[in-house]
Amino acid sequence: MATDIVKLLSERLGAEQIVGADVIAERATSYWNQAPMRAKALVLPRNTEEVATVLRTCLQARQPLVTQGGLTNCVAAVEPTDNEIILSLEKMNRVVEVDTIESIAIVEAGAVLQNVQETVAEHGMRFPLDLGARGSCTIGGNVATNAGGINVLRYGMMRELVLGLEAVLADGTVVSSMNRMIKNNAGYDIKQLFIGTEGTLGIVTRAVLRLFPQPSSKHTALVAMENFDSVSAFLAMLRQRIAGSLSAFEIMWRDYYEAVTGEGGHRAPLSREHAYYVVFEAEGSDPAADEKRFNNVLEQAFSDGIIVDAVVPKSESEVADVWEIRENFEKLYEADPVYIYDVSLPIRKMSTYIDEVKAEVRARWPKGECYTIGHVADGNLHPFVVPNEQGDHKQSSDECVYGPLVDIGGSISAEHGIGTEKLSWLPYSRTQAEINLMMGLKKHLDPNNLLNPGRVVRSH
Amino acid sequence: MATDIVKLLSERLGAEQIVGADVIAERATSYWNQAPMRAKALVLPRNTEEVATVLRTCLQARQPLVTQGGLTNCVAAVEPTDNEIILSLEKMNRVVEVDTIESIAIVEAGAVLQNVQETVAEHGMRFPLDLGARGSCTIGGNVATNAGGINVLRYGMMRELVLGLEAVLADGTVVSSMNRMIKNNAGYDIKQLFIGTEGTLGIVTRAVLRLFPQPSSKHTALVAMENFDSVSAFLAMLRQRIAGSLSAFEIMWRDYYEAVTGEGGHRAPLSREHAYYVVFEAEGSDPAADEKRFNNVLEQAFSDGIIVDAVVPKSESEVADVWEIRENFEKLYEADPVYIYDVSLPIRKMSTYIDEVKAEVRARWPKGECYTIGHVADGNLHPFVVPNEQGDHKQSSDECVYGPLVDIGGSISAEHGIGTEKLSWLPYSRTQAEINLMMGLKKHLDPNNLLNPGRVVRSH
Repeated sequence: MATDIVKLLSERLGAEQIVGADVIAERATSYWNQAPMRAKALVLPRNTEEVATVLRTCLQARQPLVTQGGLTNCVAAVEPTDNEIILSLEKMNRVVEVDTIESIAIVEAGAVLQNVQETVAEHGMRFPLDLGARGSCTIGGNVATNAGGINVLRYGMMRELVLGLEAVLADGTVVSSMNRMIKNNAGYDIKQLFIGTEGTLGIVTRAVLRLFPQPSSKHTALVAMENFDSVSAFLAMLRQRIAGSLSAFEIMWRDYYEAVTGEGGHRAPLSREHAYYVVFEAEGSDPAADEKRFNNVLEQAFSDGIIVDAVVPKSESEVADVWEIRENFEKLYEADPVYIYDVSLPIRKMSTYIDEVKAEVRARWPKGECYTIGHVADGNLHPFVVPNEQGDHKQSSDECVYGPLVDIGGSISAEHGIGTEKLSWLPYSRTQAEINLMMGLKKHLDPNNLLNPGRVVRSH
Repeated sequence: MATDIVKLLSERLGAEQIVGADVIAERATSYWNQAPMRAKALVLPRNTEEVATVLRTCLQARQPLVTQGGLTNCVAAVEPTDNEIILSLEKMNRVVEVDTIESIAIVEAGAVLQNVQETVAEHGMRFPLDLGARGSCTIGGNVATNAGGINVLRYGMMRELVLGLEAVLADGTVVSSMNRMIKNNAGYDIKQLFIGTEGTLGIVTRAVLRLFPQPSSKHTALVAMENFDSVSAFLAMLRQRIAGSLSAFEIMWRDYYEAVTGEGGHRAPLSREHAYYVVFEAEGSDPAADEKRFNNVLEQAFSDGIIVDAVVPKSESEVADVWEIRENFEKLYEADPVYIYDVSLPIRKMSTYIDEVKAEVRARWPKGECYTIGHVADGNLHPFVVPNEQGDHKQSSDECVYGPLVDIGGSISAEHGIGTEKLSWLPYSRTQAEINLMMGLKKHLDPNNLLNPGRVVRSH
């Protein structure tokens, strides 16, 4: 059977589109898992029709497959099993068209995010989705996981940035829904079936992306607060005073800021004893007025006692240094194990929630720590649980983080998705009726359970 | 059978929740159709559990039903047939909660849009969806049709403004997906199944809406241009210069402006010989700076020759007068019949598209006219076709408007939906693979075809 399907694919696509198990093992399983990749074969279609051929062939043989983009997925959704075929879209990586009048770009699913950002920038436009993995992650993966990142506050998640797409269903049907308009209510918005469903309902092959003008001003500051009410008050003030310009509002709890700065870490532009630190950014189109407004709101927050300290970086490199503190947390990984999370919850519950997680962590591991950062305005926090004890504490750590979410209506996944890693926790965030509806959709669109089986919803 | 189902519903919900066919006839069929409403019965559930009871009862009896909100639907989606039961959500009309910290409101589906806008305004917040029917249309209808309106440019359509919802499936299952966070990727985003699907896949009973701060400044102008390139250039200039503030950009073709102003119509604040007129609006949070920026960009557009005339209204009532020209087109209805459309298409194709429609209209009716307004920035135009000949010319008029859309990849419905009125035209905008996918979803979620049958997708 194993040889049959590989042979068949090889005949239909050409041998050079198929990579065997031995060569696959030279690749790492994913960014997060450096073990050699294992799978029955890796298939590299060059266009949508070849993707359809792969799916038709796999359906004939009842061969399950997993779709791969840039391998930066955080929830073990793209790690294959021995029994699976890998479908990689790495040969379908072109930016096909950039239209500055309609403000759209047409891209293939395998296009790397950063390449898309840079290509449209050459046309004076901006594709605002941005996240740490930008140099590896692909548009197809961004669509499949409904990626978030640092600009959601102003531009929305990937769902808001995709106008149309093309996908291939489990039976090989190509569904072209390449809408280019902001508004289109001609029937069901079927692209939603493929956004954020992690490749379980179809394989995205192309997308129409929404572009924006490049902002002509950008202002950044790092500020400190002594309590969470001040964080909320500052966010409310910015939303009121620089509405429509605020593009990032990133929080760091004190333990995180302390851990990544100081000896051997980042330089600390603000002293390390404050309770909370926020990096925020405003974008605008009127540099002089924007700067004045930015400074005014900072001064106001100071005189109101909302913020207790602030630094405004004066150069591109100083701005980069501030962002490094938030984005580069390598230093935390001197400990082992480290478990990183991605939860969302109402803003007013954040402070007590993190206190509760910390208490849980300390109760289990006397030297345990919980370092937290996040996109406050989006309700999205990333706690890092560090037991400071050898061993596999994942299950126990998950309980610390997910347990307290249930009562407050939080989500076990704000932007990373479910994959295989969070599957057993899904009932913590979704009702049985919701899960049944998901499973029903999966069965309807992939009755043989061939597309990314066991990800997001239980195998039927 | 007819008496059985009505009797059964009466027993299960209480007689006062059921209105008989004779009393229904005292209501008009819809805002657009003043004929007496006809249906088997009208059911008025008071809560979600009662909606579920209605659906379970209807399923038992294989009784089709149509869900009604404010009856302003433009595509005959809510007009019942003799054989249908009407489910009206008018008793479920409460704003349940307004949370200014999380910036959300929880509302029942029968809440009237304007009531929601006003209630959240009392809390200093804004719900930005806005359209002419605001005083009648309901949130449930806004969700079901993915409503658009005049603020889409800045705030998106209803889809972007709904964080969570509760819906009842055809078998009476209540699916509560009342997410309150901006980001939630814990499994499929199942609310998408109920947004823009016109009540054919489930009945929305509650929603979590996203709120925004009230803007503290608003500036409006009416400007004139001599060609469509100038319209595009002006939009691009505004997007660049007042990005994030531009909240409306509404076009009127000369024939429209001429028709609704002049003798017996609106006062014309600008002379009537220009090719295009645009009402645009910018919202901000810094009144002095915003005004300066607004005036600067107007002056720049003048000196660049992009706009040839402009008027900036000086009072609330002058602003209202300008909007009246765009929003009140009663004068067109002195002719009979008048056919109004709702199409979307790439901006660069708009000018030649409208020329083509006009030529088609003139070829069919020597005195025929096509008056056009629209939300240019969203790619959305509303042509009014007026044959100036007695009789039913709907089919022929549809051909004039929809025919030229096919080659340019436009949509037969930007914001109004499909309902029953546009069903036969759906293939003009969607591929057979897309339509098959829609029909498959309908069959999966409503196997007995009981929810708004014959709307959006063909009955199976």
